[in-house]
Amino acid sequence: MLKRLGAQTVRLENAPHIRAYACVGGKKEGDGPLRAGFDRISDDSYFGEQTWEQAESRMIRDCFALACGKAGLAPAGLDYVLAGDLLNQCVSSAFALKDSAAPYLGLYGACSTMAEALSLGAMLIDGGFAETVCAATGSHFCSAERQYRFPLEYGGQRPPTAQWTVTGAGAVILDASGRGLRVTHVTTGRIVDAGITDANSMGSAMAPAAYDTLRAHFADTGRSPADYDAIFTGDLGALGHDLLEELFRAEGTVLGDRYMDCGVLIYDAKRQDANAGGSGCGCCAAVLCSHILPAMQSGVWRRVLFSATGALLSATSAQQGSSIPGICHALVIEKEA
Amino acid sequence: MLKRLGAQTVRLENAPHIRAYACVGGKKEGDGPLRAGFDRISDDSYFGEQTWEQAESRMIRDCFALACGKAGLAPAGLDYVLAGDLLNQCVSSAFALKDSAAPYLGLYGACSTMAEALSLGAMLIDGGFAETVCAATGSHFCSAERQYRFPLEYGGQRPPTAQWTVTGAGAVILDASGRGLRVTHVTTGRIVDAGITDANSMGSAMAPAAYDTLRAHFADTGRSPADYDAIFTGDLGALGHDLLEELFRAEGTVLGDRYMDCGVLIYDAKRQDANAGGSGCGCCAAVLCSHILPAMQSGVWRRVLFSATGALLSATSAQQGSSIPGICHALVIEKEA
Repeated sequence: MLKRLGAQTVRLENAPHIRAYACVGGKKEGDGPLRAGFDRISDDSYFGEQTWEQAESRMIRDCFALACGKAGLAPAGLDYVLAGDLLNQCVSSAFALKDSAAPYLGLYGACSTMAEALSLGAMLIDGGFAETVCAATGSHFCSAERQYRFPLEYGGQRPPTAQWTVTGAGAVILDASGRGLRVTHVTTGRIVDAGITDANSMGSAMAPAAYDTLRAHFADTGRSPADYDAIFTGDLGALGHDLLEELFRAEGTVLGDRYMDCGVLIYDAKRQDANAGGSGCGCCAAVLCSHILPAMQSGVWRRVLFSATGALLSATSAQQGSSIPGICHALVIEKEA
Repeated sequence: MLKRLGAQTVRLENAPHIRAYACVGGKKEGDGPLRAGFDRISDDSYFGEQTWEQAESRMIRDCFALACGKAGLAPAGLDYVLAGDLLNQCVSSAFALKDSAAPYLGLYGACSTMAEALSLGAMLIDGGFAETVCAATGSHFCSAERQYRFPLEYGGQRPPTAQWTVTGAGAVILDASGRGLRVTHVTTGRIVDAGITDANSMGSAMAPAAYDTLRAHFADTGRSPADYDAIFTGDLGALGHDLLEELFRAEGTVLGDRYMDCGVLIYDAKRQDANAGGSGCGCCAAVLCSHILPAMQSGVWRRVLFSATGALLSATSAQQGSSIPGICHALVIEKEA
C-alpha cells in the first residue's frame, strides 16, 4: 500500500522513535544561547587534530560515539549510518565514520543533510529494512571558509547578509521501537532555483526552497502552520527567515511566532558578530540536538515541523557565474501522549 | 516484518522493476567496445556547454530526459530522483536535475553512486513510499582531472595503475509494477580503509571494500558466486579486478569467468590508452545501461550481482596524507521467467 500523501510527503505508519541524540560544538557555539544543550564544547578549534578538515571529522566521530553511547548501542549494531557534510567529496563524514563497521549511505544535501538523513533513515525503518539507524552531520567554520570563500588569514569582510558556518555536529539514532519522540511524516524537497547568484546571501537563495517544501507539506497533509507547536527552518538566518515569512504572508498564510530559524537561534547575532546568523550542516543538526529535541522531551512542544535547507553551489559553480539552487527537506516530530 | 537478511542485506519482497534506462557518453566511450549500447555519443567534449562542469551536468540532464522519455513519464511524475556525482558539492547532478520538479535526494557515494541510488530507490519503492524513482549519475574526464589531479594542459604522466575517468552518464527508472528485470536484493557496504595512500591506484584502495561487501552478500544470502550468471564490480579496473579475485581465492572462493569489471569492459585499454581501465560515477552507470541491462533483457544472463565501488577521498584529504577509504554497494538484478 502506498504511504504517499500528495506529491512530496509520506506518512510513516510505524513511526520510528528517536532513541538517542548528541551534539558537539566549538567555542563560539558554546558561547551562544544554546550552550547548555551541547554534550561537549571544545575551545580548541582543531579538536586535537592537525587540520580543520580533520577537526570537522573528529567532531562528527565524537558526536556519533556519544549518541551510540547514550543509545547503549555498539556502532556496528546499527543497520545503517546516513551522513554527509559540506566538504569536497564529503570527506569529514566518511573519515569520521569509516571505522564504525556499519553499512554506510553517504548523502549530499548541503545544509539540509540532517533532514535528508533523518527522512531516509525514518523511511528505511518504517519500510522494514532496518531497526536502528543513525543520521549524522557536521560543519566547521574554518574548513568551510577556506573551501568556499577565502583563506582565514585574508580577513575578508563579510556583508550583513552573510552567515557564519557553525562549528558543530549532531547525531540522532532512530529506532523501530521505543517511546517518546517519533518521526511521523517526511516531506522531500524539490530543487528550487530562484536565480540568486550572491554567494553571500544564502538566506535569499534558500528561502524559496523552504517555501516550496513547506507549502507542499501543508498541501499534502491538509495541515496549516497552526497545527504545529513550532516550525523550524535549518539555516535561513535572519534575512531568509523574514523572506520566508513574507512569501507565506503574500499568499495569506501567517507563520507567526511558532516559526523560528536554527541559524537565528544558535548565536546572539549582535554580541557574537554572526551577521545574519548561523549556517552549515552543523547548524540545524546542533540546534535539533541541543534545543529542539530536549525541549520536546520536557514537554515545551508536542508537534514540531523540522525543516532544513541547503544551497547547492560549489566554489566552481559560483565562479562560473551559475545561480544558487536551493533545496529543503522537512519532517514532523511528535511526542507521544 | 524486518526484511533484513544478515548484517548488510535486505530482500525486496515486492522487487521493483526496471522500467527504462538510458546512457550518454563521450567520444572515447563511443570509440570503445560498448559503443552500440549508448543512446547518445557526443564528439564534443563540452556537450554544447561553456565549461566541462556544465558539460557533465548537461550529459546527466540529457540522459535523465532520455530515460524519462523511454519510460513515457514526465520528470515531475517521479516520486523521487536520487543522484550524485564526483564534483565538489555534487553540482553536476544538482544542476542537471534542478528543473525536474521531482523530490530530490542528493547522494555522495563517489563511484558507487549508481548502486547506492538504485539500492535506496528500490527500498523506497519496496517500502511503499514511491511508485517510480529515477537513479542517475555521471562523470566527465576533463572536470575530474582538473579537480582531482592536474590541469589538462599540464599533460601529467599517468602510471599503469591509473584509471581513466569515464565521460558518461546513466539513468535508470524503477517502478513498483511492470515486467522484465527486477531488483531483488540490496547489500549496503561498510567503509573499508586498507591504508592505501596512492591516489593513482584506486583499484587497490577499492578492492578491499568490494571484497567486504560481496563477502557479506554471500554470507547474508547463503549464496555463492556460482548462483549468479554474472558478477560485476563498478570500476576496479584491471588491477583491482585481479586483486579482488585474489582476495576471494585466498579464502577458497573462485569468482571465475562470470566475474567482470565495468572499468575493464568500457575501453579497449591498450588501443585506447586507458591504462588500468575506466573509473568515475559514469563508468558503471554507463556499462549498466549500455551493456548489462540490454544483455539481461535479451536473455544472456538471468541473475546478475551488480556492485559499484567508490573511493572516499578528496584532493584535500590526499594532500593531507590521509589514506583512501573505499566503499562498495551491491544489488541483485533478476530477469523474470
